Parts: sequence; structure tokens; C-alpha cells
Amino acid sequence: MGILSKKSANVFNPIDEEDTLAEKLEKEGKQILKLSAGDPPKYFKTPEYIIEAYIRALKERKTSYALGIGVKELREAVAERYKRMYNIDVNEDNVIITQGVSEGIDFVNAALLDPGNKGILFRPYYPLYMIYMRENGGIPLFENYYEHLSWNVDVEKLEKTIKKEARRRPKYLLVTNPNNPTGTVLDRKVLEELVKLANEYDILIISDEIYDEIVFNNAKFTSIAELAKGVPHIILNGASKSYDATGFRLGYMLIPEQDEKSMLIRDKLADYAEARLSANVPAQYAFADSLNNTKAHEKAMKEMVKEIEERVNLATKIVNESKFMHAVEPKGAFYLFPKVYLEKMKFKNDKDFVISLLKEEGIQITRGSGFGAEGHVRLVALAPKNILTQTINKIIKFCERHKKEA
Amino acid sequence: MGILSKKSANVFNPIDEEDTLAEKLEKEGKQILKLSAGDPPKYFKTPEYIIEAYIRALKERKTSYALGIGVKELREAVAERYKRMYNIDVNEDNVIITQGVSEGIDFVNAALLDPGNKGILFRPYYPLYMIYMRENGGIPLFENYYEHLSWNVDVEKLEKTIKKEARRRPKYLLVTNPNNPTGTVLDRKVLEELVKLANEYDILIISDEIYDEIVFNNAKFTSIAELAKGVPHIILNGASKSYDATGFRLGYMLIPEQDEKSMLIRDKLADYAEARLSANVPAQYAFADSLNNTKAHEKAMKEMVKEIEERVNLATKIVNESKFMHAVEPKGAFYLFPKVYLEKMKFKNDKDFVISLLKEEGIQITRGSGFGAEGHVRLVALAPKNILTQTINKIIKFCERHKKEA
Repeated sequence: MGILSKKSANVFNPIDEEDTLAEKLEKEGKQILKLSAGDPPKYFKTPEYIIEAYIRALKERKTSYALGIGVKELREAVAERYKRMYNIDVNEDNVIITQGVSEGIDFVNAALLDPGNKGILFRPYYPLYMIYMRENGGIPLFENYYEHLSWNVDVEKLEKTIKKEARRRPKYLLVTNPNNPTGTVLDRKVLEELVKLANEYDILIISDEIYDEIVFNNAKFTSIAELAKGVPHIILNGASKSYDATGFRLGYMLIPEQDEKSMLIRDKLADYAEARLSANVPAQYAFADSLNNTKAHEKAMKEMVKEIEERVNLATKIVNESKFMHAVEPKGAFYLFPKVYLEKMKFKNDKDFVISLLKEEGIQITRGSGFGAEGHVRLVALAPKNILTQTINKIIKFCERHKKEA
Repeated sequence: MGILSKKSANVFNPIDEEDTLAEKLEKEGKQILKLSAGDPPKYFKTPEYIIEAYIRALKERKTSYALGIGVKELREAVAERYKRMYNIDVNEDNVIITQGVSEGIDFVNAALLDPGNKGILFRPYYPLYMIYMRENGGIPLFENYYEHLSWNVDVEKLEKTIKKEARRRPKYLLVTNPNNPTGTVLDRKVLEELVKLANEYDILIISDEIYDEIVFNNAKFTSIAELAKGVPHIILNGASKSYDATGFRLGYMLIPEQDEKSMLIRDKLADYAEARLSANVPAQYAFADSLNNTKAHEKAMKEMVKEIEERVNLATKIVNESKFMHAVEPKGAFYLFPKVYLEKMKFKNDKDFVISLLKEEGIQITRGSGFGAEGHVRLVALAPKNILTQTINKIIKFCERHKKEA
């Protein structure tokens, strides 16, 4: 018997080799250009009004434990946000505060999955979904976001996938909208059909909507909560992206429905939240104030999203002008997920591509196989335009250098 | 198939009935006197120098993600603390930052236990140990802190317990020192024998030392790290108690040894930490500064511990003068864990006692059965002396009123 649990083998960094290499190179004094971290505050200072609210909470000594489900003021502010933005009738009892969306994903998988239970994941997926599913003994039932559909869901194919599993129905399906890594904003019509299907087959919908305010290029975001009236669902969201405060580690779960199943889930998720006592308390008060300060927030977000839109579009343009990569135009978040035409180059696969790029150019990007979608790479388009331009041009030159001779 | 996982049934609040009742009474406008929350900042303001360090971190916009294992500055400061206080030769690589000790307990159980694996818990235990052990399918192998030994471990009995399990050796033993709920500081000699035993039977030692600076009544605290040279062990600690900052939700795991087993455990715990991205970042910088500001810390702690000592001793005196309860004199933390002479009163058990007290007097304390030790109650002696005196006197009058006639 080894000292570690067998299930812990599922908890690992899928891109550990790259991260370790980047760290090693940095230790050797090499500067690494990273288009790999989805971390807005690195490039956009967390707005002053949020920092001020945080400092206020500290000065008022909001430093005791809070309720495990989160301080009332924050849960109310989250409920208000959904009323205001999406016209959803919820109150603080529908909200549970988590230590980032990460913890929400952890709780959901732990509360729902015993070994052998299934959940539907769409490829490419955010790696953490897989880690926590597997760590709980869950088995992914894969469907795809289809690149030829601009990374949308194909609902007919989804239904076929569900039907194949008639004997062991998946407990949930998990969508990410806007999407990391593809930058897609799912079509409202697709979401309507998806909700219909989930209802018909009695599958809980989990929708990770952490990028819901980072939407651009004239796209319109629809929250699952707007469509899934009467259908059990969980919305995951938080402060990291739309409030430009990744380091606060504050997320929330919204469980808007009142049916028996939703209530069971809500209460159990609350048990998980209470067990670990609470999330960081002064940050909760800061986030509550920030959610309520709609005027300051709208101003800050408008500026940030406009800038992100320009950066993403610039990056997409440069990428798509090369003959080695092609990205579907992103409409949200701040990622590009181009297909890499590996067959034109001398690389075995996307991992080989990414590691060679890191070694030769000191540029770190993330390989698609880490998201379950080989032959792609993810670029984060948060850096200033001159850096983005330089870096992507270097990547293209790198491709050129490694192209196969005709 | 229900929607919830079977294992999630292990995640629940063992004193949910009392908590729900207290909440109901408060909603009805009744004021509840709580000697139930181990939450120092409620009574002792988090020191100014810590708040200032936190504000500094925010103004410097330390609001991006950090390393999953924690910011380097904090891991270094923790390592320094152990060099300084306990003469342990460690560096930042031996430290992993967690979201409270709670998350440390979560990670340790997940990383070590598959269903059916065992771990040794001593009764009375902190309830979360049991929750995470069970949630991972682990099975507790119980030993006791013995009241007649001032709640110390009986190492001979511990060895017998281990020997009974020769076929399925427990993976770890978990001690809490200073102890919640008993207030015991374990004897150095007992700890030495315990380490010897753990080494002999190849059992990982986990020592929750979150109260290591709240020690009084001339007791001397010994960290397991001082004794377990060459024996794999994990120390759990954090900012909550010794830095009077429960609401920061910052803990750490120290894995001091370099043997193969310790390294395997360290790397896997790091994987768990990296999966959920990071703990609150500005709080990490604040805690790092606070750990390094030894002068301000020592002054603040000296004052707080002196005051806690007086409150604990006062509470113990009043409790022990009654003929309905008796507490072993606490030497650390801020809890009393008196035996309640239920046979002298008309209560069925400690739960009946605690719920009746809540209903009749509006006083909330915690029943021993929540810690796996029936017939006891836990009182938190953090409230000011006049409140403590009044409240405990009310409890004694309540006992008097319910005593059995001779």
C-alpha cells in the first residue's frame, strides 16, 4: 500500500512539463514571455473603488469568521446582480460564496459524484473540471464544442451522446459560457435547446459563467439562468474576471430554482461550505460593496472590455494572417484557441510545438491537449498591444523556421 | 439513483440542530449569548500592524493569482518562524499555504485516503477531521485523550490500538496540540513516545498546532517538528489564532522531512494546492509581513495570551466551584471542556442539556458528543470577564433548577 491515495493520482497539472521548464529557464535568468495566464490584474489594475472597499472592510475589522455560505451582504449583492442583469428572481438564500469558482467546481463534483457516476464535459474543457470529476471517481462523458460551428454545441449530437448512456444517465452537464479556452459566447438558441434536453433527460445543468461581463464583437451573452426556468441548474461565477480581482479568490454558486432536487443540492453544497468555515471575510465585504457600486463598476468594465476587445482582435488578426494557425473569432473572455497546422511543420504534436517554442523563443503558451483538444494552442490576449504583436510575430517566425519543405 | 453522492452524506454539521435553533431564536428577536465560537477577533481586535500590512498589499495591488503553493515571501516567513521558534531547519519548499487549516485537513485526507483506509483520531476530536476522513471513505481508528490523564495520550493504549489493526495499518495519526476542545498542551514525554511509536509502525504523524502560541499557566508547548527528526510528519498551522485573524482564512502545511515518503506527500499536496489556483493573495502578503514583524507580534500576543489566561482561569474556577461540572485546567487555546454530571440532573444526555440551555437561558455552548465525547460540553472563554461570569453563573443556576431531588 503506497502512502498516497489512488484517487489522488487524478490531481495533477496537465501542463506540468511546460510549467516546470518555464520555471527552470527563469531560474537560469532567461526572461519568459507568458501568454499563458488568464489573470487580468496583471495587465489591468484592480479598480480603485474595489481596493477602497477592501480597505474599508479591514479598517472596520471585518476579520472574524463569517457564515460558511458567505456573508449576508455579499449573498444579497449577488442576488441583486442577477435581478439587475438577468431579471432572475432570486434572493440571498439562492447564493453560496466559494473560494473562487475552483472551489465551486470542487464542491459540485464532491456533492454529486460517487465513483462510476458520469457527467458530461465538452471538449475543449477547463482542466479543473476533469481533475475534480476524476478525483471523485466520476467518469466524463465527452461531447464537443465544434470548431466548425464556431465552437458551439451541436445539440443533436449531444442528444445522441446522452441516449447512448441510457442505462447510466449522467448526473450533470457542464458548460462554460463565455468559454475558456475558445472565447466563444454560446448562441441563445443553442442554449435553449440544451436546456430543453437537460430537462427531458433529467440532467442537472452547471454553467460556468465567470466571463459573463467580458463579451464583445457585438455578441450577446445569455445566462442559463434566463432560460432554465423550472429546470434545476447551478451558475458558477465570481470576482476574478468581471471584477478584475483573481487574487481575492472569491466565487459564488447560484442555485435559482426551488424544486426539491435544487433544494437538496443547495443544502448539501451549503454543508460543504460550512465544513470549511468560511471564505476570506474582508474580501467578501469588498466584493459586496463593489457589486453594489454599479456606476463605478460599469465605468471600469467598459474601459477594460473595450481594451480587451482590441487586444483580442489584434491578436486574432495577426494569428489568422499566418498560414500556420487559424482561430475562430473570439466573442468573450480573452483567449484565442487557434488550430495549429502541425502538418505543415516538423512537430509531433501540440506539446512538442509548445515546448520547442518555450525553449527556442522563451514564449509560453498553453497546448490544446491540456484542454482535451489536441492540435490547438491557447493564447491569452491580455498583454499590451505591442507585446502581443511582437510575441505573436515571434511565434509565426518560429513556425516558419520549422516548416516542412515542400 | 439520488442526485447527491453517497459520500456527501458524511459532510454535515454535527450540531446542526442547535445552530438552527439559535438562528431561529435570533430571528424571533431573542439575544443569544454565545460561548460557542472559537473566534478571537470577535473579542480581540486583529492587531493594527497586521491590518496595515494587509492595506499595504492592497495598495501595491497584490491582487493577481499567486502560486498554488503560496507566495514565496509567505512560505519563507513560515520557514523562518519554525527556525526561530523551534530551531527546525526548513525552507520555503517545505511549506504549502492553505485556505485555513480546514483546507489542509481536506487536502491531507484526499491525498492519503481511499475508501477503507484508516487513520487514527483521538477523542474528543475536532469535527472536521471526521468529516473529511469520512468524505474520502476513510475509517477512523479511535483512541482517546484520557480525562484522568489531563486529556493526555496513553501511549501504551495507543500501541494496543495500533496492534489490533496489524492487517490494515492506519495511514496516519492526527493529534491536536494545544487541543480543541480540551485546552490540553500535550506533555513532551508523551509526544516523544508517540513519535517513537509512529516511527516503529510506519504511521504518518499529522499535528494540528494552530494554537501553538496560545499557551499559559506555565505550560511548555512542544512542536512535533522538534521531536520527529527523521520521522515523516505534517504540521498544520495558520494565521487564525496566533495572529488573531480567523477571517483571513490562511493556513499552512509544513512538511519538514526530506525522505522519499515525505517528498511524495509534499508533491501531491502541492498538486492539490495548484489545482485550486491559490489562496487569497493580499492576505498572504499581509501574513508574511506579520510573521516577519516579530516585535509587534510578540507585544500583541503577550497581551492577548495574558488576557486569555485570565479569562480561561476565571471560567474554570467558576465551573469547578459548581457541583454540576468539572473541567481539567486548560493550558492552551481558549476552551474549557468540562464533564457535566448529567446523572445529578434531569437531562437525557449532553444534547438535551445544551438544547434546554439554549431554549431556557438563550445561552449557546457546544455539546461534547459533537466532538465524539458525550457527557461533556465545550465553553469558549474568549468573552470579557463580566460576560463570562454572568453566563457561567446562569448555566449553574440552570443546572440547579434541573437537578434531581435527593
